[in-house]
Amino acid sequence: MDVVYSELHALQNGAYELIGGQLQPPVEKPERAETIRAAVEAAGFGPLLSPESFPDDTITRVHTPEFVAFLSTAWDRWVEAHGPYDALPLNWPVRTFRQKIPEAIDGLLSYYSLDAGTPITAGTWKAARTAVDVALTGARLIQDGKRHAFALCRPPGHHAAADLYGGYCFLNNAAIAAQYLRDNGAAKVAVLDVDYHHGNGTQAIFYDRADVFFASVHADPLQEYPFFLGYADETGTGAGEGCNANYPLRWGTGWETGYADALDDACRRIHGWGAEAVVVSLGVDTFEQDPISQFKLTTPDYTRMGERIARLGLPTLFVMEGGYDVAALGDNVVNTLTGYLNASVVA
Amino acid sequence: MDVVYSELHALQNGAYELIGGQLQPPVEKPERAETIRAAVEAAGFGPLLSPESFPDDTITRVHTPEFVAFLSTAWDRWVEAHGPYDALPLNWPVRTFRQKIPEAIDGLLSYYSLDAGTPITAGTWKAARTAVDVALTGARLIQDGKRHAFALCRPPGHHAAADLYGGYCFLNNAAIAAQYLRDNGAAKVAVLDVDYHHGNGTQAIFYDRADVFFASVHADPLQEYPFFLGYADETGTGAGEGCNANYPLRWGTGWETGYADALDDACRRIHGWGAEAVVVSLGVDTFEQDPISQFKLTTPDYTRMGERIARLGLPTLFVMEGGYDVAALGDNVVNTLTGYLNASVVA
Ligand SMILES: [Zn+2]
Ligand SMILES: [Zn+2]
Repeated sequence: MDVVYSELHALQNGAYELIGGQLQPPVEKPERAETIRAAVEAAGFGPLLSPESFPDDTITRVHTPEFVAFLSTAWDRWVEAHGPYDALPLNWPVRTFRQKIPEAIDGLLSYYSLDAGTPITAGTWKAARTAVDVALTGARLIQDGKRHAFALCRPPGHHAAADLYGGYCFLNNAAIAAQYLRDNGAAKVAVLDVDYHHGNGTQAIFYDRADVFFASVHADPLQEYPFFLGYADETGTGAGEGCNANYPLRWGTGWETGYADALDDACRRIHGWGAEAVVVSLGVDTFEQDPISQFKLTTPDYTRMGERIARLGLPTLFVMEGGYDVAALGDNVVNTLTGYLNASVVA
Repeated sequence: MDVVYSELHALQNGAYELIGGQLQPPVEKPERAETIRAAVEAAGFGPLLSPESFPDDTITRVHTPEFVAFLSTAWDRWVEAHGPYDALPLNWPVRTFRQKIPEAIDGLLSYYSLDAGTPITAGTWKAARTAVDVALTGARLIQDGKRHAFALCRPPGHHAAADLYGGYCFLNNAAIAAQYLRDNGAAKVAVLDVDYHHGNGTQAIFYDRADVFFASVHADPLQEYPFFLGYADETGTGAGEGCNANYPLRWGTGWETGYADALDDACRRIHGWGAEAVVVSLGVDTFEQDPISQFKLTTPDYTRMGERIARLGLPTLFVMEGGYDVAALGDNVVNTLTGYLNASVVA
């Protein structure tokens, strides 16, 4: 399986992030992508491809131009106002407030963000922009006839909406890749999000669309970040009604205690809908040892996850999302891809 | 002038807050109220009265019962989940998200807050609840016939809305006092907010009401926190149309370069509306040396501010809000009250 990777991900390297009310060294750190790259290479996946360059209009198919302009200039404006340290917003336009775009950089961070845990650093834009190229290079491989590819994106993307960043995400790599497949031949594309956290950004981007199906298996938003999206009654709107499927699961869920059933149902829905290709938002923060998560998947469970995905029988682009237990990240990703490949061969 | 004060304000004593992207020792700290108390006593104001106890239903006249229940239990729930350190939220239900109340304490903090700079600590509830009693004791003095009183509240209140805390504010002392005056004889009450920051909470609480006029002179939300409310075109809604007046002023504004004119117009509007009493949200973070603000008022300007307020000729309750230059806080508050008293005597 081809693997697309760029070392430029390391340019996103925050000094700290807000976790459980404390500023701590980020769990979303460069070692994540490096350990995954080393593991997939050691397991014989490859070749390791560098990303091609894609134009910005692939991004503005899912993000607003204003948001892209903000992200690409935020660091310089922050440094001018405050100095060269990580940019974090302070407040948010929640209930009672207006959705009016301020002038000051602090206000712009507040307007375009959804949390206080996603630092913008000197290298953020370059890293996020390159992650898009990684995802799109993978999508082009699929478009060109490959049955599968792995876009080893970092920073992740699934929390980023049309004009919102947060949850370590700036540009929605998976959504941009799905849109690229739509724009280049696939009539119906599904996104299957197996990250521990709900893919609120991807859902919001495609919520009113009948040509992209979004299915997500994740921690119940009553208990878990991002809290305010990801319920089972979110089924799409307008033309997109019926094209969104959420499987919120309680803290403590394991493979046999709810996860496999939810994943099976998500795959059944995608199959029944008639997807021509699937983009998998591959987060492995469902792992039992993940430092910020509360599911109980084990390393062998990821092999089973890959097998289920393979049974869809669809051209499959894996796009890396979350997963923070660096010691197990490589094994869990390798098992997913290996399970997928082995089941694909026998299918 | 009677001064109402309780040393229990010191129970609100956060370890840090997010300012300009960095966790720093809070500027909203106990020394603020202590230095003001010492300065007003030294200037001959008094007597210094302890607050009476008022029932919770004075609070739920402006805040939702669910919000009050949340605030009063948040610390215990946070400690149970995380441990005994300051509670801060992580994300917010902004655009694309639902306004659904989560179960987990982290989600509740996210739902009920508007920023990441307002720590909930072990003593927060007691301090905030006592600040309400301080404000209401001042309001009762006015109701009982006093022409003026100073409620030396801490923590401040004007950023807190019906079910939102933030901006160092938990319960809206000034709004609760204004409502108390309404409920006990005054047909029309004005709130004049001279804090550097827009009093978004007070505005939101009274925005559809014809019996409370809200006027605020503050930094332009295009440039300054809270960014998403405080524009001049916010004039009230429904029955409250025409009962809200905002005076956003640019960074760098001084007394002679816009501030006095705006204050004069705000007072003119309150007078023309026919207020029977006025609650002044007294923030002195308009001061030129304030560490988080960008106005240029000088210490003598506060005497002039007090004189203008006195010319309203109304029963006046001063309620302390912001102001963070501890070295000048006492002088600036004393000057405001002295200017008021001297002009009242000659009026
Ligand atoms: Zn995740
Ligand atoms: Zn203020």
